[in-house]
Amino acid sequence: MKDQSEMKPYVIGLDLGGTNSVFGIVDARGDIKATTAIKTQGYDRVEDYVDACVDALQVIIDQVGGIDTIKAMGIGAPNGNFYTGTIEFAPNLSWAHNGVVPLAKMFSERLGNIPVGLTNDANAAAVGEMIYGVARGMKNFIVLTLGTGVGSGIVINGQLVYGCDGFAGELGHVIMRRENGRPCGCGRKGCLEAYCSATGVARTARELLATTQEPSLLREMDPEKITSLDVSIAAGKGDKLAKEIYEFTGHMLGEACADMAAFASPEAFIFFGGMTKAGDLIMEPIKKSYDEHVMKIFRGKAKFLVSGLDGASAAVLGASAIGWEL
Amino acid sequence: MKDQSEMKPYVIGLDLGGTNSVFGIVDARGDIKATTAIKTQGYDRVEDYVDACVDALQVIIDQVGGIDTIKAMGIGAPNGNFYTGTIEFAPNLSWAHNGVVPLAKMFSERLGNIPVGLTNDANAAAVGEMIYGVARGMKNFIVLTLGTGVGSGIVINGQLVYGCDGFAGELGHVIMRRENGRPCGCGRKGCLEAYCSATGVARTARELLATTQEPSLLREMDPEKITSLDVSIAAGKGDKLAKEIYEFTGHMLGEACADMAAFASPEAFIFFGGMTKAGDLIMEPIKKSYDEHVMKIFRGKAKFLVSGLDGASAAVLGASAIGWEL
Repeated sequence: MKDQSEMKPYVIGLDLGGTNSVFGIVDARGDIKATTAIKTQGYDRVEDYVDACVDALQVIIDQVGGIDTIKAMGIGAPNGNFYTGTIEFAPNLSWAHNGVVPLAKMFSERLGNIPVGLTNDANAAAVGEMIYGVARGMKNFIVLTLGTGVGSGIVINGQLVYGCDGFAGELGHVIMRRENGRPCGCGRKGCLEAYCSATGVARTARELLATTQEPSLLREMDPEKITSLDVSIAAGKGDKLAKEIYEFTGHMLGEACADMAAFASPEAFIFFGGMTKAGDLIMEPIKKSYDEHVMKIFRGKAKFLVSGLDGASAAVLGASAIGWEL
Repeated sequence: MKDQSEMKPYVIGLDLGGTNSVFGIVDARGDIKATTAIKTQGYDRVEDYVDACVDALQVIIDQVGGIDTIKAMGIGAPNGNFYTGTIEFAPNLSWAHNGVVPLAKMFSERLGNIPVGLTNDANAAAVGEMIYGVARGMKNFIVLTLGTGVGSGIVINGQLVYGCDGFAGELGHVIMRRENGRPCGCGRKGCLEAYCSATGVARTARELLATTQEPSLLREMDPEKITSLDVSIAAGKGDKLAKEIYEFTGHMLGEACADMAAFASPEAFIFFGGMTKAGDLIMEPIKKSYDEHVMKIFRGKAKFLVSGLDGASAAVLGASAIGWEL
């Protein structure tokens, strides 16, 4: 007898960000059938947040034929723990900053007891790539998300790596510089994230401006206000210093990937997030540095890919993909 | 109907080393019921090596009741590839140093077509710990073998990590020192193995003897002839410099484990090999350094254990364990 859930054509995805909570109802091909959003903040109690979510969701659930068409829901959220379905001490969420919130269970109870899975956004991105994106058919790959921070989702033997506690896959926090490393938001020094996140790129810009005489469009700005977007715009105009910033960033990412290969020998490294818009400016230094640094037996084996998920809806697609895995 | 193989009580393990090939017939509890060995070298052709193995094996197979009592065979071998069952370009094996040898298939054909699995010795040790040793019941752990080199076997979600090519788990070759790193046998610089293998320990001894004035029993020796065993003996006698060598080695292992936690968040790190005989002299610095270096969310979660496999037969047990997984 066929499992009834096989007949349900949709999953709900929730991209739970610090500012917005974006919902999508998605089919197995990754087509978003309906979408809606609410503000994440403005709720003191998680119950009120979930109430507002369900009110918004009900409209799009009705649009696709009611709750009986929904197989499951996936949530991508900061500090999300897949094992427990909870958000734990998320500093940027007013209703979850000082406790453990059982968000998956709460949504399930309000949505006819459908299965609800929750994980962090980088893990959601990895499952999204496996189900809808460039990792379809792959069993071993690593997604690196280059955003405000550097996150990662690791798939080994076709399964997401959660570790013993649900928090595995913090590759933004491997140590790349053990001497004079940059301070990182995690309280340690020399982490990959301190160099290769958007804030790391801006810091590299300030350092290069201060330590070189290279002319650059970036010199026209207040150094303290330079962002990774400014670097990207300058590089797009052919600015040599901006290109050097990407070379430095890509070089370090390639070094880091070489160590990751020694661990997992993945079929591909997949890059996700705003910085990938720089295209070859960032991808070529990554590949070059990887080839220089990786063990000989791994050389030439891994692919370096940019996310196959559509930028605007990538996070919702990733979150929804968790639903298919439940 | 019960699978017939469930009724077969034994597996064969082969620890294929550069000098000796040691066989054991092992039951599900890890008791070695019969054992034998031949020299690994002295054969130009792999066929002759396998002939000699099978001749020796036949005697102990008969002792336990014949080939019908054998479920499978596991082989731990240098450069062993689990996916293909081959040994690839193993520099220390006269019959496999310049080609790809389908050893698993050859043994299967000679042993009544029983399943034969082959992997490297560190992976075999990891499966051995999971089936007979201190990792029973664990789904996420990392075995680090501290021998002539530093090897690793990684288990995630209850499965060994082989990666896309069968060669994942080379944690002896993550880069620990990116500036002025020691040359490593792999051709790169700064690898964990260059510091924390037996040869790395001997080198640390020579460096400390040359750069400090610390009195030490090791000063009575020709520096070029100091081995890790000498360091161990001196440390056992309370030699302060020898203890410093272990502190340095343990410190770096703890740093490396902190990065591994960011990847896999394992339940335990398990140390295997001769260096673990130093006990707390090496284990305490590892734990202390790990706590200093690991991300806060992982602190206090992982156990640090010494292999639970009996030293003399550990490698054979590990190899045999592969047989239960086939």
